[in-house]
Amino acid sequence: MSETVTSPAGPETGAGQAEPTPLGIIAGAGAFPLALAKAATAQGRAVHGLLLKGIAGQDLTVYPHSWVGIGQFGAILKAARRAGCRDLVFIGSLVRPNLWTTMPDLVALKHIPEMARLYRGGDDHLLRGVARLFERQGFRLLAAQDVAPELLMPVGPLSRRVPDHEDLVDIAQALAAMRALGPYDVGQGMVIGAKRIVAVEGAEGTDGMLERCAAMRVSGRLKWGKAIGTLVKAPKPNQDRRIDLPAIGPATVEKAAAAGLRGIAVIAGSTLMVEPQEIIRLADRHGLFVVGVDATREVDHD
Amino acid sequence: MSETVTSPAGPETGAGQAEPTPLGIIAGAGAFPLALAKAATAQGRAVHGLLLKGIAGQDLTVYPHSWVGIGQFGAILKAARRAGCRDLVFIGSLVRPNLWTTMPDLVALKHIPEMARLYRGGDDHLLRGVARLFERQGFRLLAAQDVAPELLMPVGPLSRRVPDHEDLVDIAQALAAMRALGPYDVGQGMVIGAKRIVAVEGAEGTDGMLERCAAMRVSGRLKWGKAIGTLVKAPKPNQDRRIDLPAIGPATVEKAAAAGLRGIAVIAGSTLMVEPQEIIRLADRHGLFVVGVDATREVDHD
Repeated sequence: MSETVTSPAGPETGAGQAEPTPLGIIAGAGAFPLALAKAATAQGRAVHGLLLKGIAGQDLTVYPHSWVGIGQFGAILKAARRAGCRDLVFIGSLVRPNLWTTMPDLVALKHIPEMARLYRGGDDHLLRGVARLFERQGFRLLAAQDVAPELLMPVGPLSRRVPDHEDLVDIAQALAAMRALGPYDVGQGMVIGAKRIVAVEGAEGTDGMLERCAAMRVSGRLKWGKAIGTLVKAPKPNQDRRIDLPAIGPATVEKAAAAGLRGIAVIAGSTLMVEPQEIIRLADRHGLFVVGVDATREVDHD
Repeated sequence: MSETVTSPAGPETGAGQAEPTPLGIIAGAGAFPLALAKAATAQGRAVHGLLLKGIAGQDLTVYPHSWVGIGQFGAILKAARRAGCRDLVFIGSLVRPNLWTTMPDLVALKHIPEMARLYRGGDDHLLRGVARLFERQGFRLLAAQDVAPELLMPVGPLSRRVPDHEDLVDIAQALAAMRALGPYDVGQGMVIGAKRIVAVEGAEGTDGMLERCAAMRVSGRLKWGKAIGTLVKAPKPNQDRRIDLPAIGPATVEKAAAAGLRGIAVIAGSTLMVEPQEIIRLADRHGLFVVGVDATREVDHD
């Protein structure tokens, strides 16, 4: 690539070779950006928040930060360079932006044909493309889990309750259906109970899907007599793990409980957890299981 | 099978060999049961409605009929035999019954272990099992479309608008995703636009999925600027075509229009239409396409 690459040395790093550059946290919504900033600073690394206007919360404003528009690619690059960042992490949830209502700045305008192309595909396509744009500008895109492995779901149950044999059969079936859907960039989450997949996640997201299951119980459309059903989440097969891992947090547990489910199963090592202690506390309070499935050892339980 | 098989000759058929037995229409909700009854009587065949209590409407009460409980397998058999039926058709939508809140009669009680087994799987499993139960009692289960082929979606567009190249690419992608999901008994309907699958149908049904898309447009979660997107429906690969074909009707068109979609694509010859004239009128009024895809000639448009 022939683009100019800004020196990684920023004002804070001085001349010390061992001194790492501040970690640039391109922050969307939710609690993950703060969890990551805490983890990085606990390791002695400085952070600089690149907070997406209208999306990120105020949490990261306790750290050095800049507010940037999601369409303002040039402003993001400039703020990151000025802060001396070389490593960037995308974290937090994004509402898929509408290119035509976002005010693009001049640099983004230059990239519009490329961005328009990205928007034509699904999320995978979009996110991988955005990663490429940053890398071409000389930045290194890190995965949140490489910076803070403690955010990753471990193998096995976090909760006191564990899935029983029927739950394991359900989980295996949902994971198989997700693998089949993998090439189609949809269906990262499913709800299954008594061997029947009753909900598949689309653009509404995991929370929307769980709210639907709760509503179907109330309306009688879903006639499950007792606590039954599992929320199963898995990354898509070719997902860029640096920018779009599945995630669960306390709200996921609350919504799964409200939908009358028995538990939550995710892929260990490929799922981010926000506030793990709170996840455990809520799961135990509601009597739900929360389990990390070892995808490398997955067997057919049927 | 050693079960007693009742003679097909009923009171109405007399001794005439060519005189067909009345068609037993096991009727659920919606407009299909009446459409089928009209089609059968237009062909000169008598019908007897076996109307599911709490589910079927009053439309069929203009024909000879009996009201029967959905769990009352014995009562259904008895009413069908008394009416002289040998051929039965399942038609209309069923809300999946809850075995434990339905009052089963004595014959159903005898079948409870079998019925409980059926309920453990998905819809395919359930419906195929019910078909088997009736056949073992000496009845013949016909498909609605064999009695009234005019209820089947033909190849090509019904509407004035036709899908453009981008719509065809979307439709092919959704059909491929459905084929991949086929073995998992879910996802008979999808909404896709600009190459992105945004909704997958689960237990909420097609109407529920379309309402979700409309809500996602309003909330801004789905940022489609103009009329975009197609509702695609297809039967599951191993679906019993006698009892559970996908169906569309005027309400489907209204809900697709409310969700801001451009059209509806279904598999020709494998989709039932209720009130085709009304489907066409509404599609043309809203400017939607409604098209039957020839699955045997389906090509990759990308």
